[in-house]
Amino acid sequence: MQIQDLETPVAVVDLDRLQANIRRLQTYLDLHGLANRPHIKTHKIPEIAHMQLEAGATGITCQKLGEAEIMVAAGIREIFLPYNLLGPAKLERLMHLTRRARIRVTADAETVVQGYAEAARAEGTVLPVLVEFDTGTGRCGVQSPQEAADLAQTIAGHRSLHFAGLMTYPFNDQTGEFVAATRRLLEAQGLPLETVSIGGTPAMWQAHTVSGATEHRAGTYVYGDRNTVLAGAMTLEACAFHIRTTVVSRPTPERAILDAGSKVLSSDPARGGSGYGQLLEYPDAVLYNLSEEHGWVDVSRCDPRPQIGEVVTVLPNHVCVVTNLLNQVVGHRRGEVEVVWPVLARGMVQ
Amino acid sequence: MQIQDLETPVAVVDLDRLQANIRRLQTYLDLHGLANRPHIKTHKIPEIAHMQLEAGATGITCQKLGEAEIMVAAGIREIFLPYNLLGPAKLERLMHLTRRARIRVTADAETVVQGYAEAARAEGTVLPVLVEFDTGTGRCGVQSPQEAADLAQTIAGHRSLHFAGLMTYPFNDQTGEFVAATRRLLEAQGLPLETVSIGGTPAMWQAHTVSGATEHRAGTYVYGDRNTVLAGAMTLEACAFHIRTTVVSRPTPERAILDAGSKVLSSDPARGGSGYGQLLEYPDAVLYNLSEEHGWVDVSRCDPRPQIGEVVTVLPNHVCVVTNLLNQVVGHRRGEVEVVWPVLARGMVQ
Repeated sequence: MQIQDLETPVAVVDLDRLQANIRRLQTYLDLHGLANRPHIKTHKIPEIAHMQLEAGATGITCQKLGEAEIMVAAGIREIFLPYNLLGPAKLERLMHLTRRARIRVTADAETVVQGYAEAARAEGTVLPVLVEFDTGTGRCGVQSPQEAADLAQTIAGHRSLHFAGLMTYPFNDQTGEFVAATRRLLEAQGLPLETVSIGGTPAMWQAHTVSGATEHRAGTYVYGDRNTVLAGAMTLEACAFHIRTTVVSRPTPERAILDAGSKVLSSDPARGGSGYGQLLEYPDAVLYNLSEEHGWVDVSRCDPRPQIGEVVTVLPNHVCVVTNLLNQVVGHRRGEVEVVWPVLARGMVQ
Repeated sequence: MQIQDLETPVAVVDLDRLQANIRRLQTYLDLHGLANRPHIKTHKIPEIAHMQLEAGATGITCQKLGEAEIMVAAGIREIFLPYNLLGPAKLERLMHLTRRARIRVTADAETVVQGYAEAARAEGTVLPVLVEFDTGTGRCGVQSPQEAADLAQTIAGHRSLHFAGLMTYPFNDQTGEFVAATRRLLEAQGLPLETVSIGGTPAMWQAHTVSGATEHRAGTYVYGDRNTVLAGAMTLEACAFHIRTTVVSRPTPERAILDAGSKVLSSDPARGGSGYGQLLEYPDAVLYNLSEEHGWVDVSRCDPRPQIGEVVTVLPNHVCVVTNLLNQVVGHRRGEVEVVWPVLARGMVQ
């Protein structure tokens, strides 16, 4: 079967490009001695995680426990969960996972550390915990090297925990300095700094410039998307994931309506661009609005213009939230369908 | 079990409010002699569709064939599909549905009508088709009463089709006039105008002011959301659907981070407001940013401020895209869990 035989809207993944993307980042990280812990939030598909491990990744990263449970059930044994986990139900699930896989977590507050310590003590295990720090992103994380060192000391003070290092997302010009300052404080306390985990796809090719970093987590790089291209981190030709969508209406000469709306492409904006995706066959078309099941396209600058019934190919702005909308993606090589992957960890929000 | 015993993030539906919302719109439409064809795109749950029918709806509306297939499989026999359906695969599925349920569709172009006519002829059935028209929204639909009448004539010219009326979304001040002008043209051609179907939740209480309308389609009204409240169509107290989410980080005195991000709340903006949802327990909190699994909240104006580990209740901006992200929602009465509904038609994008 060829991808042109598939009903639309449908997500198609170019398997040759996917594998090239996996190899390209692995080669770069190997060259610079950085461990690769790819983030599966982008694809949520066990087989792609296995492909990343087979290419040389030391483990994977999951954002939610539910994602990790899917990946462990698929035989993956090395997982980083860089997310504060709170409350007895989540800690119980975490402990169950530690029986089946090597799990690392993060914390940015004493409350979180306390929960991990009690759960791990009751389980009779030693849980590796990294301290999450913030160098200006303004999301989670301790705010200063002193806070980081203090929390590390708290972790190290629990026999059921192991202080395993530092983690941040994404990285920036201040990251290396923060790490160095924390390392000095830790050394004064006699605590070794093992892992320094940084992440993100847009700046992935600068990972080697972060002094002290030992590990990188990238998600989007496997597929690529319009925002990754706009950030200059990937070429349009390297992008492996697209939505094939049909022009279902041409109500005016200037307007085409697609059968993919915000329930396929998501409302995520372009970073440094406008619109909700790029039409490969019509570079001058502007996908200027989405309703839930319709994409609104200005075709006034196109010559020729897409006709009703025609299938076009859209590169979405942000692929991670697009795969999260879809039950399956179709893998192909040069248009020939090779695999239909259920997006198994989709919707695992807990 | 109580909703406070559920892991977060989780969608909870107040069943008393849900039923009151269903009754309220039905009573209004009954009073004005308008048929009720609620749009299931909001909830995507067969049992809620049955509740709408039991309350007096004449049928339901689905946006995609895949949604209609789920609903027919749940025993629903009266379905409106206001979406241009193109290509042999979709027309075959449509014909299969007509064997099991009464299905109405729309068209806004001759190509679409041609496809319906051939499929229905081959099937040996007569398919009711409404003409979609546009009075300024700028999405699908014919642009003038003359175009509408011409397309109606084309439909009526096929023995395998039945011209069933007009359809638009949403309605506005020009809708009644467009209908009247089309009716005059149709009468001159000897074509009766049966159904005039209008839709939308934000203006639902004005449906009776649209001269000539016979039927209304609303989706969001069952649950309500922040945008419906901002539009003045529902009160905050009538909203039945919320996301319970935990404060997983308090990295600074001003900032709280929730375990619900754009993969739960979606990136859909507030219409006439800012932020990505409203925290019921903290009306002065601002949910100013989302990443995929984190909600970023400014709590600087709150007194007291939410603590790490605390569960808060978020009214999302746009509920239709939120339910579409979730595998299940939990129905409760006064906090007591009564039902866990799989969102069965979720992801049925084809």
